[in-house]
Amino acid sequence: MRQHKLALCKTHFLDWVPEQVERAISKYNMFTHQDQLLVAVSGGKDSLSLWDILQRLGYSADGLYIGLGIDAGVNYSINSLEYARNFAQERNLMLHIVDIQAEYGETIPELAMRTNRGHYKPCSVCGLAKRHVMNRIARQNNYTVLLTGHNLDDEAAILFSNTLNWLGNYLIHQSPVLEADKPGLVRKAKPLCRMYEREMAAYALLRGIHYIQEECPFAEDSTSIYYKGLLNKMESDKPGVKLNFYLSFLRAKRDGLFSPSIDENAELLHTCPECGQPTSAPGLCVFCRMFIQIENHVET
Amino acid sequence: MRQHKLALCKTHFLDWVPEQVERAISKYNMFTHQDQLLVAVSGGKDSLSLWDILQRLGYSADGLYIGLGIDAGVNYSINSLEYARNFAQERNLMLHIVDIQAEYGETIPELAMRTNRGHYKPCSVCGLAKRHVMNRIARQNNYTVLLTGHNLDDEAAILFSNTLNWLGNYLIHQSPVLEADKPGLVRKAKPLCRMYEREMAAYALLRGIHYIQEECPFAEDSTSIYYKGLLNKMESDKPGVKLNFYLSFLRAKRDGLFSPSIDENAELLHTCPECGQPTSAPGLCVFCRMFIQIENHVET
Repeated sequence: MRQHKLALCKTHFLDWVPEQVERAISKYNMFTHQDQLLVAVSGGKDSLSLWDILQRLGYSADGLYIGLGIDAGVNYSINSLEYARNFAQERNLMLHIVDIQAEYGETIPELAMRTNRGHYKPCSVCGLAKRHVMNRIARQNNYTVLLTGHNLDDEAAILFSNTLNWLGNYLIHQSPVLEADKPGLVRKAKPLCRMYEREMAAYALLRGIHYIQEECPFAEDSTSIYYKGLLNKMESDKPGVKLNFYLSFLRAKRDGLFSPSIDENAELLHTCPECGQPTSAPGLCVFCRMFIQIENHVET
Repeated sequence: MRQHKLALCKTHFLDWVPEQVERAISKYNMFTHQDQLLVAVSGGKDSLSLWDILQRLGYSADGLYIGLGIDAGVNYSINSLEYARNFAQERNLMLHIVDIQAEYGETIPELAMRTNRGHYKPCSVCGLAKRHVMNRIARQNNYTVLLTGHNLDDEAAILFSNTLNWLGNYLIHQSPVLEADKPGLVRKAKPLCRMYEREMAAYALLRGIHYIQEECPFAEDSTSIYYKGLLNKMESDKPGVKLNFYLSFLRAKRDGLFSPSIDENAELLHTCPECGQPTSAPGLCVFCRMFIQIENHVET
């Protein structure tokens, strides 16, 4: 691990990773042993490793798998559910499973095809649906913190994209912890935000965690993957640049670089009459509006 | 010019460039036809083209060449002075020439070797000396605005570097115009800040401007050149990304993204007793301290 000027054997590496995660949990005040945690698991290496690490660190954490109905010729959702379910069963862990098609009538690709939001690329609809469902399940079951497996490469790529376009409102909200600062919102945290993707792949491999190795088929041409490639090129030229980019951003933010007055979400004070989650304008939230659109579309 | 979805013939291109520069001058309120302008010329394509464009646009602009005493086996400073002097003579323009060695006793590489600031790489000392001398000559001769030939590639690379490290104090001060907001400081502007380097090279070529083609020999391994390479790679994948990065930054800043309270230069209120230029602490400014150090060094 050139970025840390560190090389470890298997045993020490498998101890080092949870130590690093525990440090991030503590540094960013993510949660404590008194919290009831819900981990969003996709069946991939990051989320399953996160769940594994939380068990090893003695936290109480259940899982949530959201079935997106993505097939794309490779049975993507069916296979990833299998990995998540096997992981939970082998370890006797509680896994909530929400199937989007069963609950809302359509798969994510179908939803995307039917709405303007998708433009035949389902990533935007998918993100919206996942955020909505994660928050709903966490609230319904009284979890106090919702965790996702975003690693440093994910966070750095998002930051890079937001920075290349100077999206102020996204920059001021990118954080290892998203506070539950609106009624109906559950606190969110990303305990792997300082872990390199390579480190997490090595961890999953060495811990014998079986996970889905394919990326989501729709992500292949995504800008996020393009930015990850660029950041990896920079990282190989200057080890540590990725971590420094992300950490110096968090420090600058903590030290008051950004003006709080530009927060466009500050007035997110309405409640959706359909689902009870917070929304920026009176009336239905974006998620519920999407289904009204679909119902109208089906009727006509 | 894929970034503008535009292709022009020679005649139209040579009209288009000054139009674009005039737009930037006006958009960022850089200066008017009543201002007395001083252009810092290095002998390179950007600063000589800027001087040429200012003449064509009818502005009153003299030149300033600063002799740095850089030889590096290629007569860099001697050759670049020749290009600047020939340009001025052919067009009957006024060129101030300041020779660092003649005025201060040492060349830039010698200064760098003698001070801790240089660490045997003279770029930091060189930047400091140029800023000092430019401001001094502008004040002594009552110029109202000091211009430099920084193009979009220069500005985007500086921004990229400052952003990768989230240097808040540099980010809030990067601007097409630096106001003369401290006693003793002359207003500065960068009229080429929206022009791609390729566009300026084409302009110089098509206008028949003779300029020094070599980069400064000390700049070869600079991080700025590394970042320019990365940005060029991104630009060829996504035309316009460089311009968008810079312009979205300026817009976000104008819209109040950054908190003014973090400005560390706000208390730059002292005056150097030696040179009369503003400085952050009581006593000699950094430039004058550098010479005191040298004198002490020579004495001991």
